[in-house]
Amino acid sequence: MIEAEFISALRQLPLHRGAAGLADDAALLGTHVVTTDTLVEGVHFLSDDPPGDVAWKLVAVNLSDLAGKGAIPEGVLLNYPLSGDAWDRAFLAGLHASLAAMDCPLLGGDTVSLPPGAPRVLTMTAFGRDAAAPLRSGARAGDVLWVTGTIGDAGAGLAVARAGDCTGEGPMALLAAYRRPQPRLSEGRRLAPVARAMMDVSDGLLIDARRMAAASGLAVTIALDAVPLSPAYRAYSGDVMAAVTAGDDYQLLCALPPDQRPTGLATRIGSFAAGTGLHLTRAGVTVALPRDLGYEHRA
Amino acid sequence: MIEAEFISALRQLPLHRGAAGLADDAALLGTHVVTTDTLVEGVHFLSDDPPGDVAWKLVAVNLSDLAGKGAIPEGVLLNYPLSGDAWDRAFLAGLHASLAAMDCPLLGGDTVSLPPGAPRVLTMTAFGRDAAAPLRSGARAGDVLWVTGTIGDAGAGLAVARAGDCTGEGPMALLAAYRRPQPRLSEGRRLAPVARAMMDVSDGLLIDARRMAAASGLAVTIALDAVPLSPAYRAYSGDVMAAVTAGDDYQLLCALPPDQRPTGLATRIGSFAAGTGLHLTRAGVTVALPRDLGYEHRA
Repeated sequence: MIEAEFISALRQLPLHRGAAGLADDAALLGTHVVTTDTLVEGVHFLSDDPPGDVAWKLVAVNLSDLAGKGAIPEGVLLNYPLSGDAWDRAFLAGLHASLAAMDCPLLGGDTVSLPPGAPRVLTMTAFGRDAAAPLRSGARAGDVLWVTGTIGDAGAGLAVARAGDCTGEGPMALLAAYRRPQPRLSEGRRLAPVARAMMDVSDGLLIDARRMAAASGLAVTIALDAVPLSPAYRAYSGDVMAAVTAGDDYQLLCALPPDQRPTGLATRIGSFAAGTGLHLTRAGVTVALPRDLGYEHRA
Repeated sequence: MIEAEFISALRQLPLHRGAAGLADDAALLGTHVVTTDTLVEGVHFLSDDPPGDVAWKLVAVNLSDLAGKGAIPEGVLLNYPLSGDAWDRAFLAGLHASLAAMDCPLLGGDTVSLPPGAPRVLTMTAFGRDAAAPLRSGARAGDVLWVTGTIGDAGAGLAVARAGDCTGEGPMALLAAYRRPQPRLSEGRRLAPVARAMMDVSDGLLIDARRMAAASGLAVTIALDAVPLSPAYRAYSGDVMAAVTAGDDYQLLCALPPDQRPTGLATRIGSFAAGTGLHLTRAGVTVALPRDLGYEHRA
């Protein structure tokens, strides 16, 4: 099964009312927002990524989902495979650094052993409070699509890591975007009260924007020339189509009514209209969709 | 690192007040009890265990921790590695059956892909409410140690599964205890209000009883001849030392004041006193501890 089929099948099970039909990145449990993400060695991180960076990323991807709800992190659970002294210690150091940086305490977890040679599989579950919690399904026709930060840096950082060539300030910045992503918690707090729909960009700008449009029953059009690229990314490749289809940005994507202009906090990149699907333009002219819009898990 | 070292190191991180110093199987988040457990193929289940039974066990081990708190299950999160159509479908059927049997809805989760050939790693996080929540650290000198159900069946069931010989009613019952454990939710609800300490037995009766005693700053003595064994277990081997050191029982262990006698609900197997450590007797005579008291995760 691919991920979408599996999630469809899960919808046949008894669902909690806070599950929101499994259509969102986070669930509601009383006054808490709950989210969980798993990272797999060889899939979500490389075997030679520094263990401290893996810890950072595990925390960041989870707290990014809380940021997408405008929530304040309250605590995390860690499911950890014991990996040998050196790896474990470096992981713990990165975990400490990331939890301290994001002001989030540890609530509990579970440790296991893996069979020798098995790829590491790490899970974190994060709890947030005071969520303004706009769902991804709340966009309306006429709403404007905004995105925080810049897009594509982490994808380029992955290429830098794979090539093993990270000399220079630009490639180092891209590598940092891949290895130590910064969840947009404060931006999420400020955008959530005015957003009609919000989510974090984890699998790629195009695929995630299409998901927001589909959940809202709308079409979305993105102006590729409006997508914010960093100076480091422009120097590295500047390929906007690569940027909008790469994963791991952990920026926030939100639909705002046209009278809301969070300048300085986000960049306007598109708009919602009646209809279906994702549409791209460049200099006002329609552009064909790339074959892969982003990252989807397959069995 | 071994599990205990890793958990010690985690205690140096910023901890949530509901983490109870990471000394318990469950944490408190507002009015909810939270627990999480990971199952690893080749460690916690066998590669040829039926996928539906793996699903059942994943739900059961998590809800058993809620039972240990006397809580009512409210929902679960599932972190699932896509495993191919047949495995996924059989897993979903077992998940549906177990959640329905234990009256617990799905709240959310995450699906991932694993590299080819990687052992499956499955995580579930469970939420409960209305916990009476006695910690494992609350036993007092003079308290009596009680256990629900019978001990050792799942351990013998694992041996039956490994031998591939499950003909006959007895071996089938042992196999069922291993593959489809029943969390003691209703027993937990009834025992929690009168228990001074309570926990589920997951790694083995002896190691878990010693953990309760250590957390309570006491010594515990267990009368081996009082440990309840099932007719199927007596017919299979009857070895009490094997039973009390085997894992996966998912019964409840609790410390009760001497005037509480939950006859019919649990069996009296020992007592707490000032001092430290675990002590065993048989026919009133002290017996040496076995080398391994139960299951501990090692890197």
